[in-house]
Amino acid sequence: MNVVVQNIERADQSIIDQLAECGVATVHEAQGRKGLLAANMRPIYAGARLAASAVTISAPPCDNWMVHVAIEQVRDGDILVLAPTSPSSAGYFGDLLATSMRARGGRGLIINAGVRDIADLTEMKFPVWSSAIFAEGTVKETLGSVNVPIVCAGALVNPGDVMIADDDGVCVVRREEAEAVLEKAKARVANEDDKRKRMAAGELGLDIYNMRQRLAEKGLKYV
Amino acid sequence: MNVVVQNIERADQSIIDQLAECGVATVHEAQGRKGLLAANMRPIYAGARLAASAVTISAPPCDNWMVHVAIEQVRDGDILVLAPTSPSSAGYFGDLLATSMRARGGRGLIINAGVRDIADLTEMKFPVWSSAIFAEGTVKETLGSVNVPIVCAGALVNPGDVMIADDDGVCVVRREEAEAVLEKAKARVANEDDKRKRMAAGELGLDIYNMRQRLAEKGLKYV
Amino acid sequence: MNVVVQNIERADQSIIDQLAECGVATVHEAQGRKGLLAANMRPIYAGARLAASAVTISAPPCDNWMVHVAIEQVRDGDILVLAPTSPSSAGYFGDLLATSMRARGGRGLIINAGVRDIADLTEMKFPVWSSAIFAEGTVKETLGSVNVPIVCAGALVNPGDVMIADDDGVCVVRREEAEAVLEKAKARVANEDDKRKRMAAGELGLDIYNMRQRLAEKGLKYV
Amino acid sequence: MNVVVQNIERADQSIIDQLAECGVATVHEAQGRKGLLAANMRPIYAGARLAASAVTISAPPCDNWMVHVAIEQVRDGDILVLAPTSPSSAGYFGDLLATSMRARGGRGLIINAGVRDIADLTEMKFPVWSSAIFAEGTVKETLGSVNVPIVCAGALVNPGDVMIADDDGVCVVRREEAEAVLEKAKARVANEDDKRKRMAAGELGLDIYNMRQRLAEKGLKYV
Amino acid sequence: MNVVVQNIERADQSIIDQLAECGVATVHEAQGRKGLLAANMRPIYAGARLAASAVTISAPPCDNWMVHVAIEQVRDGDILVLAPTSPSSAGYFGDLLATSMRARGGRGLIINAGVRDIADLTEMKFPVWSSAIFAEGTVKETLGSVNVPIVCAGALVNPGDVMIADDDGVCVVRREEAEAVLEKAKARVANEDDKRKRMAAGELGLDIYNMRQRLAEKGLKYV
Amino acid sequence: MNVVVQNIERADQSIIDQLAECGVATVHEAQGRKGLLAANMRPIYAGARLAASAVTISAPPCDNWMVHVAIEQVRDGDILVLAPTSPSSAGYFGDLLATSMRARGGRGLIINAGVRDIADLTEMKFPVWSSAIFAEGTVKETLGSVNVPIVCAGALVNPGDVMIADDDGVCVVRREEAEAVLEKAKARVANEDDKRKRMAAGELGLDIYNMRQRLAEKGLKYV
Repeated sequence: MNVVVQNIERADQSIIDQLAECGVATVHEAQGRKGLLAANMRPIYAGARLAASAVTISAPPCDNWMVHVAIEQVRDGDILVLAPTSPSSAGYFGDLLATSMRARGGRGLIINAGVRDIADLTEMKFPVWSSAIFAEGTVKETLGSVNVPIVCAGALVNPGDVMIADDDGVCVVRREEAEAVLEKAKARVANEDDKRKRMAAGELGLDIYNMRQRLAEKGLKYV
Repeated sequence: MNVVVQNIERADQSIIDQLAECGVATVHEAQGRKGLLAANMRPIYAGARLAASAVTISAPPCDNWMVHVAIEQVRDGDILVLAPTSPSSAGYFGDLLATSMRARGGRGLIINAGVRDIADLTEMKFPVWSSAIFAEGTVKETLGSVNVPIVCAGALVNPGDVMIADDDGVCVVRREEAEAVLEKAKARVANEDDKRKRMAAGELGLDIYNMRQRLAEKGLKYV
Repeated sequence: MNVVVQNIERADQSIIDQLAECGVATVHEAQGRKGLLAANMRPIYAGARLAASAVTISAPPCDNWMVHVAIEQVRDGDILVLAPTSPSSAGYFGDLLATSMRARGGRGLIINAGVRDIADLTEMKFPVWSSAIFAEGTVKETLGSVNVPIVCAGALVNPGDVMIADDDGVCVVRREEAEAVLEKAKARVANEDDKRKRMAAGELGLDIYNMRQRLAEKGLKYV
Repeated sequence: MNVVVQNIERADQSIIDQLAECGVATVHEAQGRKGLLAANMRPIYAGARLAASAVTISAPPCDNWMVHVAIEQVRDGDILVLAPTSPSSAGYFGDLLATSMRARGGRGLIINAGVRDIADLTEMKFPVWSSAIFAEGTVKETLGSVNVPIVCAGALVNPGDVMIADDDGVCVVRREEAEAVLEKAKARVANEDDKRKRMAAGELGLDIYNMRQRLAEKGLKYV
Repeated sequence: MNVVVQNIERADQSIIDQLAECGVATVHEAQGRKGLLAANMRPIYAGARLAASAVTISAPPCDNWMVHVAIEQVRDGDILVLAPTSPSSAGYFGDLLATSMRARGGRGLIINAGVRDIADLTEMKFPVWSSAIFAEGTVKETLGSVNVPIVCAGALVNPGDVMIADDDGVCVVRREEAEAVLEKAKARVANEDDKRKRMAAGELGLDIYNMRQRLAEKGLKYV
Repeated sequence: MNVVVQNIERADQSIIDQLAECGVATVHEAQGRKGLLAANMRPIYAGARLAASAVTISAPPCDNWMVHVAIEQVRDGDILVLAPTSPSSAGYFGDLLATSMRARGGRGLIINAGVRDIADLTEMKFPVWSSAIFAEGTVKETLGSVNVPIVCAGALVNPGDVMIADDDGVCVVRREEAEAVLEKAKARVANEDDKRKRMAAGELGLDIYNMRQRLAEKGLKYV
């Protein structure tokens, strides 16, 4: 019942890297307003932005044994995504594990639980999005699984899915949809660049998007 | 039923600017410990401080159409204050709308809901106080109202009221009370400067405020 | 019933200072995974790290009178630890009281309630760990006690206990156990330095900690 | 600054009683989806339903002095509505005050704070909607005000406004709009009776409300 | 993108009914401690217990249009399971829709959002498990989908999966695993009956489960 | 480090039983407004009221092994009080353990975590006060301690302390103070009986407690 899936498929790295440039809000919109993890998933320091392939972990509450198991499965360009099987704010991950992750090419951590050694992780510029910062220790007593589908902070994440994360939070893109989503996200970025210029020049969204007639039809009154 | 009130009264700009210098805690105390929005209204980056006239928005949950409508009503020195009609953490506002606001002279946003594009807003130094940071998109389907009285994060805000906001949170001052509150706030600042010097020199609050006798009368025992 | 205990015992200052260097996560582990205050106790700015002797305050909700009383009891190397007798997010403490604390040699504040004047406190580099940032004013009407045992954010704190606090949160160490905990914490730090080097070189925790056999015995399957 | 307003206007009692029969959900809809207090305002026992005129209380945190003051202002058909000036879950109200309320003709209590003596209040069938059940005691030290406008659980309540409360929560109706809202509420009830019969007979909302064409136009696909 | 899947597979009804008898806790254990919806999913009244096939709804926040669409897909023995695409506590469902559901043979509702008309639903004995009770109205403006996989209160639910719900909360069983889970659940019930008798007779779990030696080996000391 | 303390002192049973009659609110007031567990500790059904001697459990998160160990220490008139070492909402306790508890004379459970089998426990009239109702299973892997001092829901509880619990929540009374607290609680009950009669007859608290002059002195204005 507790398994480690060793060979997972990943999206093309250049697609992943371009998704990172688009950012969470744009990618989320581009794929039809879906894929966001819950709003309580916050970065431990401001300014991090990345995209990476998910190595998923289903772990018991307050037990970080599976993190060690998962790191062996990490390749260059991966990120760990951990969901506890029961709600937990314990500190599953700290600077030692980050050091190990980095040595494997791992890019960061997304965890619906706690993280610790914040000062060290910040200095290392090792990015983490978590639901808690808490020093509480964990044990290594009970098995979980690695690279199985998980529900993390309300979103389904399959191993190999692309995680986009920045100061706005975290978004998951299905591996097999990554390329199509990227196309839409790039179109969106281009379109926004034009809008931004017009707005900076003082033009109103009401006019740019032709909203006035529809507002009147719906019954909006100016008094 | 859905209206946009176009001509609202505002307080004198020099009064507003002086209130900004006093800060949230001082203004809140000066007007008799009232007017604070709830403690979950937090700035998206540290160090912002402002005062501005409220352009209010009553908006449906997860629908930011009225933000576009409201921006047309913004004048130099204004701030948007948005309360959803149902609890929502969706991201109503991002860098495009901030660009538009800035082109109109708008100073920032106070929103009992979500905001996104945090990295861009921080780089633009466009200040926002919100109850959530969340990339979730909104629609433009349902009307709301602009410049009507709203209850935002537990506080009544009328259009044209003065919003004071800094790292401590947000406080609202009634437009018609702004001048009187400023007088009291300035007196408080002057008084605190004196106290600060005495405390820095090692004098105790117990002595500065003559508390020892009243403490004894209430029955405090030193053991 | 309301008392101020004037002479409390403190741990040796050099032990306290060395505990600060170990940090919250390490000290918490070293004393057997205990002593953490709840995860909602967060620093008001990033990067602070300290250890200090607790001067405890049991205070009524929204009443900061006892803070003034407590500051008289503060000696060089102390920290205030305040637990309200009823849940409160009011702003018990601001830059004036911080000025007074600093003049007495006080190192900071740990409070399961609110704090205000965040911009000033940050500029002063006066560290605070709190459960809320809120400008709401307090009164001076009702007595509490100083230097009695309190339960703060879920942890028992006796006067004179050693508080360790950093970006990970807050941990309490019993005064009489401080020396023994320090020994264990230092051993832990030394051990981690070695592990960090091996991990940085690419060695896996699975091998460093000899986990593979026990994982197999528990039934973990690689597929 | 702390006042007790003695003579407030109330809506006609027969209108109030008919609003009670309509219930919270219907009245809320009838007045244009507004007026609800937040969802954390829950009844202390199931099955209560009432409407009554608001005698409002603005009270300090953990201080129930003003409840005694307010009860003198209660007339037959009134309900107390209390908002603390700072968040509080203390138990402001118990069976003694309920006995006093009942002797004055008071119908119940709506409080964005705590209540206690739940077993007694339930046996008395004295209805309370509160944000907490908590035995914590209060003091009588600080003034508040009675019969001033308050914001209670996110909604503005003026003295004399009509409060509707049942198992669904609490809704406020402006005193001067009570009659007009009642008309709309009654029309809604009549309309729902017809719909209920058709639905009980197996007819679908899709057909009763003619939704199929609009769904198709918006693009809904059946697969 | 917005679809209604019309023909879904369901588990055998007799298996479903037997799962209901086993209850949530037993079924959750029997399938390896998985499948629970989050603990905030609570029944609107005590004593309901059922199992049913899921007709799933992915609905916009505060918009219950898709509930009408879904009811047409309900067959005898089904239950609606609704997850909003953005967090919402609005009241999507009341006694009219319950009447319609019942006319179609629907057994209840599981909703990670709000429900209203609690008094009527309780009298009808129409069971609902929800994350909120709130009278707030919804609109019918935006499409969602029916009978697609959803994540509801942290758990993945596919159309046709078996939902078990009682006073302990809600558990989902994969349709294709229902029979195997039932076997394990029944074995568990039988085993517990024996344990219950021995415990009622005063035998200790320590002896029934042979725990004493393992406790001693782990180092437990009796003092 | 993990211990089971076998012989604890208890308060006199007749004192305990009389405290039960006084109830939580009265006992809490009688001992000087202290001893309450947090407001999130709620009974699983309405109407239970008891007092009992605490057998305390410090248990790992999501691990109920120590409950089995603790039940052996239970004597007639005891109650289990469990605090997890890390926040947990897992269901540590169900009807089997309740059966075992009852066979030993145990009166109930107070747990800052989850409980399950609510329907059975309600039918058995086995009272539980908990912070969660959740079916989630636990393991038996890690040791904790029995009959050591614990902090449960914010309150310090020593083994043998008297727990009072009813619909208002839970209060702890130190074993050695139980008799003195009972005297004060009984005096309070007698005093309240008199007040209740006067209030039922229409007399106001303002007059019964002589409040009018002090209110006027503090500055309350009637308008």
